[in-house]
Amino acid sequence: MPATSQTLTAERILEATEEVLRRHGPAKATMVDVARALGVSHGSVYRHFRTKAALREAVTKRWLDRTSEALAGIVAEERDPEDRLRDWLRALFDAKRRKAGDDPELFATYMVLTGESGEAVPDHIADLTAQLTRIIEAGAEAGVFVTADPARTARGVFQASGRFHDPCYAPEWAQPGIEEDFEAVVDLLVRGLRR
Amino acid sequence: MPATSQTLTAERILEATEEVLRRHGPAKATMVDVARALGVSHGSVYRHFRTKAALREAVTKRWLDRTSEALAGIVAEERDPEDRLRDWLRALFDAKRRKAGDDPELFATYMVLTGESGEAVPDHIADLTAQLTRIIEAGAEAGVFVTADPARTARGVFQASGRFHDPCYAPEWAQPGIEEDFEAVVDLLVRGLRR
Repeated sequence: MPATSQTLTAERILEATEEVLRRHGPAKATMVDVARALGVSHGSVYRHFRTKAALREAVTKRWLDRTSEALAGIVAEERDPEDRLRDWLRALFDAKRRKAGDDPELFATYMVLTGESGEAVPDHIADLTAQLTRIIEAGAEAGVFVTADPARTARGVFQASGRFHDPCYAPEWAQPGIEEDFEAVVDLLVRGLRR
Repeated sequence: MPATSQTLTAERILEATEEVLRRHGPAKATMVDVARALGVSHGSVYRHFRTKAALREAVTKRWLDRTSEALAGIVAEERDPEDRLRDWLRALFDAKRRKAGDDPELFATYMVLTGESGEAVPDHIADLTAQLTRIIEAGAEAGVFVTADPARTARGVFQASGRFHDPCYAPEWAQPGIEEDFEAVVDLLVRGLRR
């Protein structure tokens, strides 16, 4: 069903952009491709996104934000910080692995887009380490974690667990033994944080 | 100076192969290229390496072994296991960073070769984690480290420090802040190992 100018929101354009990417790969998703998919003029798309680069950056950000939004709930819970840390790392691993495994073509497409994006990936990493910092601060306040600098420690935990969320390791995530590897790394990190 | 059949050792062929790779990139280093560089017939090269794949695998293994051999000395020392662990992780990071930074073209060439190699990379990772296992065992015997399974813990330490030795992170190794990141990860891991 064609979108009228009235109903054409940024979110609707981004949904259509992802669908164009899913069907036709990273070379597509120009303003014209997206306008055609929505049945509107490309001028209507330009009113929301001024350039093709801005559209691609926005759809990439939306894709990455889906992961950080799913994890934010764990940060906000009032539970044992060690349990929250373990659950958060597990949820991050599961979310990334699902993205890579359930729709490998869309994942590969987004790998191209994140490679060309300016701020979407650094912003995403900053969001995630800020979430980790809050959990580590909660642990320090509760006297269960030791850290001189929660933000620096959070960055360390994020980097040390990279094998289980950094897309450069996506081919490993379906290998046998990955669960044991994940547990070994998380155990080491949790022990390293404990008072 | 042309090599005679008498003086043509496997090591001499591998040196010449690396030189061919350095000058002409990963597409080169066929038997004929190497034979020409040595001034011998390609039959002489075939007597040492039966296929182009075997030659490329051997030169890749030699390149990787240079790193593990440099680290073996730290494993053999009779010193505090925690200091040895820190020094070993530092030496691994420094060795990989030097390889990537001092001769980026040769590094890129070897990235192509490790991608096509069969066993060279898994063998290299097995060598390195076996070295780490020995340090962790020494720490457990001395009562300074806690581990239920030194090999599994070693694998965890190796993977958790991947940002500082896995070539997929080579572009990060020259970034500002990398030293602080390295220290934060190593501190977490050492704390996680301590009794």
